[in-house]
Amino acid sequence: MRLLSYADDGGEGLAVVRGEDLIDVGEGAPEIPADLMTILAEDLLADLEAAINRAGRKALIDPESIEFLPPIEFPGKILCVGLNYIDHASEGSFERPEYPVIFPRYSTSLVGHEGPILRPAASEQLDYEAELVVIIGKEGRHIPKAEALNYVAGYSVFNDATLRDYQFKSPQWTMGKNFDATGAFGPHFVSADEVPPGGKGLRVTTKLNGKTLQDGNTKDMIFPVDELIAVISEVMTLEPGDIIVSGTPAGVGAFRKPPIWMKDGDICEIEIEGVGLLRNPVLDDSVD
Amino acid sequence: MRLLSYADDGGEGLAVVRGEDLIDVGEGAPEIPADLMTILAEDLLADLEAAINRAGRKALIDPESIEFLPPIEFPGKILCVGLNYIDHASEGSFERPEYPVIFPRYSTSLVGHEGPILRPAASEQLDYEAELVVIIGKEGRHIPKAEALNYVAGYSVFNDATLRDYQFKSPQWTMGKNFDATGAFGPHFVSADEVPPGGKGLRVTTKLNGKTLQDGNTKDMIFPVDELIAVISEVMTLEPGDIIVSGTPAGVGAFRKPPIWMKDGDICEIEIEGVGLLRNPVLDDSVD
Repeated sequence: MRLLSYADDGGEGLAVVRGEDLIDVGEGAPEIPADLMTILAEDLLADLEAAINRAGRKALIDPESIEFLPPIEFPGKILCVGLNYIDHASEGSFERPEYPVIFPRYSTSLVGHEGPILRPAASEQLDYEAELVVIIGKEGRHIPKAEALNYVAGYSVFNDATLRDYQFKSPQWTMGKNFDATGAFGPHFVSADEVPPGGKGLRVTTKLNGKTLQDGNTKDMIFPVDELIAVISEVMTLEPGDIIVSGTPAGVGAFRKPPIWMKDGDICEIEIEGVGLLRNPVLDDSVD
Repeated sequence: MRLLSYADDGGEGLAVVRGEDLIDVGEGAPEIPADLMTILAEDLLADLEAAINRAGRKALIDPESIEFLPPIEFPGKILCVGLNYIDHASEGSFERPEYPVIFPRYSTSLVGHEGPILRPAASEQLDYEAELVVIIGKEGRHIPKAEALNYVAGYSVFNDATLRDYQFKSPQWTMGKNFDATGAFGPHFVSADEVPPGGKGLRVTTKLNGKTLQDGNTKDMIFPVDELIAVISEVMTLEPGDIIVSGTPAGVGAFRKPPIWMKDGDICEIEIEGVGLLRNPVLDDSVD
């Protein structure tokens, strides 16, 4: 099942994506809360699918009438993984990590599919990073690696756009990763059954203005999804709606000669095979 | 005004602290939402004070009947500042930072006053860190330093208890700072008018089992509160209920010879002059 979170004139909603059709959850399955976070917390994904099957092709939404929101607008945790592909760690002259490198995003940095990624006046060094998102569906702590994938509700696509100079202004990367409207997330939540176990073996590409700049595969993660869940949950309780943004392959703009930075008017497209195509225009932030 | 968030048999609530009296907001001022996050978001602190004044000494709570919660259980952001006192940066052989070092906590790591700080089976290196908490009351971005203190609703006390080996397992500190029930926060929210501007000039102490191990003063912050707000809000929108945990002075356990680690049965007390005394027992986490 594929879901999208949207806003329109009437407020916010959730839709099931079936081919070209968008079926509104609020109208087609009014007994189910039209909010993905709540659906995950209350374990209602199967109920939603059954309700939508009963509704059939009623309650269709005009795709032109909606604005995409991040599939989950306010995750309890946004856990980003740095240097999780060896080719990317190498291009930045980082050593292969022995332990997952985890840094945060806050929800104020998120933006949906087709929403503008904002380049702040403070920095020109706006870089793209294509990443697979893992969306947690079940609460757990001390989750064994062998059971970890049972805790995954689904997957999505992320552009972990980074202000490189701000990332390295201090030894902690938080600031360069948290400018408002730099973390693009979407377009869809794709339930785990539609994707190979652990999201493994999926091609990940970035195109900037149509030119391919990243072309990797999730099979090359140093710490695959099951291991990330096991290691993170040794430390902290994972909860429904938490997301793990699992790292980017080689090809980012910062380590090219000369570097490539995203700028006003650019279009950045991140595609993960079988999960989705996340497209965002880049816009100068009007406030300096 | 001083507020405390609590849980009891009837659920969760909020109380105004007046000397020895705890006045229940739900009963004494039922027109005000009994939730600090909502009160900040809706700018209801003054209304709450007026309502409680009208109620007088009605609606008293028995202090023995409640469990303290973190003043805000689910802050939108928990922004922690590393190395913000020069004597602490020096004791760890870190350079004086040129730019604030910001790392995250997630709300799963929080625990209230008198709640146990859990020492995980994974590590013995559980250290204390006494810190002043700044609680944001108003949304803002690009906040000038001269106006920054207008965005502060109040202050509290934090014990940023850290698993030192996990902090340094990777270049990002996230994991060592986010074990469940290691971030003690409370006991009270103290409104900004009760504290010197920017929380400046307040003595900060840590006692472990009655022995003083940290004894600093908030005047020695490298980046004081107004500057932290200006620098952070250049990057991201600050929102009501966001908290800034503003760093610890010298004297932590890790850099003592031999090191001092907190262990099962210890009592750790953090006191900030005029803000409060935060006391937590230390307990071995029963799950390994």
